[in-house]
Amino acid sequence: MGTDSPFLLAAVSLLSALHMGYLARRVGWSRMAHKVLPPSVTGPPQFERTFRAHQNCVECYPVFLVTLWTCGMFFSELTAAAVGLVYIIARQIYFNGYVKSTKKRLPGFYLTLAVFVTLSLLGLIGILRGILHKYLHIHL
Amino acid sequence: MGTDSPFLLAAVSLLSALHMGYLARRVGWSRMAHKVLPPSVTGPPQFERTFRAHQNCVECYPVFLVTLWTCGMFFSELTAAAVGLVYIIARQIYFNGYVKSTKKRLPGFYLTLAVFVTLSLLGLIGILRGILHKYLHIHL
Amino acid sequence: MGTDSPFLLAAVSLLSALHMGYLARRVGWSRMAHKVLPPSVTGPPQFERTFRAHQNCVECYPVFLVTLWTCGMFFSELTAAAVGLVYIIARQIYFNGYVKSTKKRLPGFYLTLAVFVTLSLLGLIGILRGILHKYLHIHL
Repeated sequence: MGTDSPFLLAAVSLLSALHMGYLARRVGWSRMAHKVLPPSVTGPPQFERTFRAHQNCVECYPVFLVTLWTCGMFFSELTAAAVGLVYIIARQIYFNGYVKSTKKRLPGFYLTLAVFVTLSLLGLIGILRGILHKYLHIHL
Repeated sequence: MGTDSPFLLAAVSLLSALHMGYLARRVGWSRMAHKVLPPSVTGPPQFERTFRAHQNCVECYPVFLVTLWTCGMFFSELTAAAVGLVYIIARQIYFNGYVKSTKKRLPGFYLTLAVFVTLSLLGLIGILRGILHKYLHIHL
Repeated sequence: MGTDSPFLLAAVSLLSALHMGYLARRVGWSRMAHKVLPPSVTGPPQFERTFRAHQNCVECYPVFLVTLWTCGMFFSELTAAAVGLVYIIARQIYFNGYVKSTKKRLPGFYLTLAVFVTLSLLGLIGILRGILHKYLHIHL
């Protein structure tokens, strides 16, 4: 592996985990503001958008962690950590936009997509290079 | 740990992450086909089955990653990677089946279960062997 | 990293993954008891509370894994593993409470929160210490 003490990846992962906790809290606040008691997940449109925004982040989060660490361990830790910070910002833009209107979720959504494409491609390059080297003794 | 450059585990993880992205896309296509606008998650039965099929994959995914890496790092990387590929296929069969009918989700569901049992058991063997060796100096 | 064969973290992770499988099973049993056929996720209040209890565990699980491993790799493996066991108990208390009534989910919820705060803070200490050492050559 490229790095044996991936402090930067760990720092971004921990930050993203805290960010997920903050977004969950936002749903809780929206419940209170719109008087939607658990376990109900339906209510005024703004609450439902807030709830779905969080759900989408929940769906994306493990995919983010896999691509972050793949890129960070096999391509470049610094690059992965930097793009990982962009991910957190992208999710915040997505969430804030979606709370306002369904259409306003799109800019943050496209930025999220760009992060996934970047991390996946760089991770793929790193893995292929590693497999060629380890199993076929081809040095690129 | 058994392996210090787990390229195969990383490759299967990255592939599974891309597969999760593809399944999310399928939900988006189903939204368009059935005219179900976000944030709504209710609509014609086929859309609701597609939505639930994806949700089930979201629920399973972190469990898969944990069992994949446990088996791969502490038992055998090659075995874990091969079974991990079966997982992706199992989820695809499950998803395609569930879209058609609730009952047709079952074959893919049972194959998923078989993957979890296999990865967990092998991972457990590897961990127990490791704990006996590291903490009790018993070599199996 | 603090540990190169994190068997205890792997053991707690595997146990938590099996616990997630058990909670998913509980939702399945609740479906049968209340005759709620998939893909429906609405029904009698007790089913809906059971369903939401599981969903909340799904939302929390990747956050748990990140904080567990951050604390375990960069602060102390034994501490993280012990607090990780408390997490599994906390989620069980939360789940059982939520099935009974919405209010009874709170003790398990607060215990979960305490676990997250503990793992995050210790992980943060470990990461900051590591970054100071690796990048700024400051030894604490």
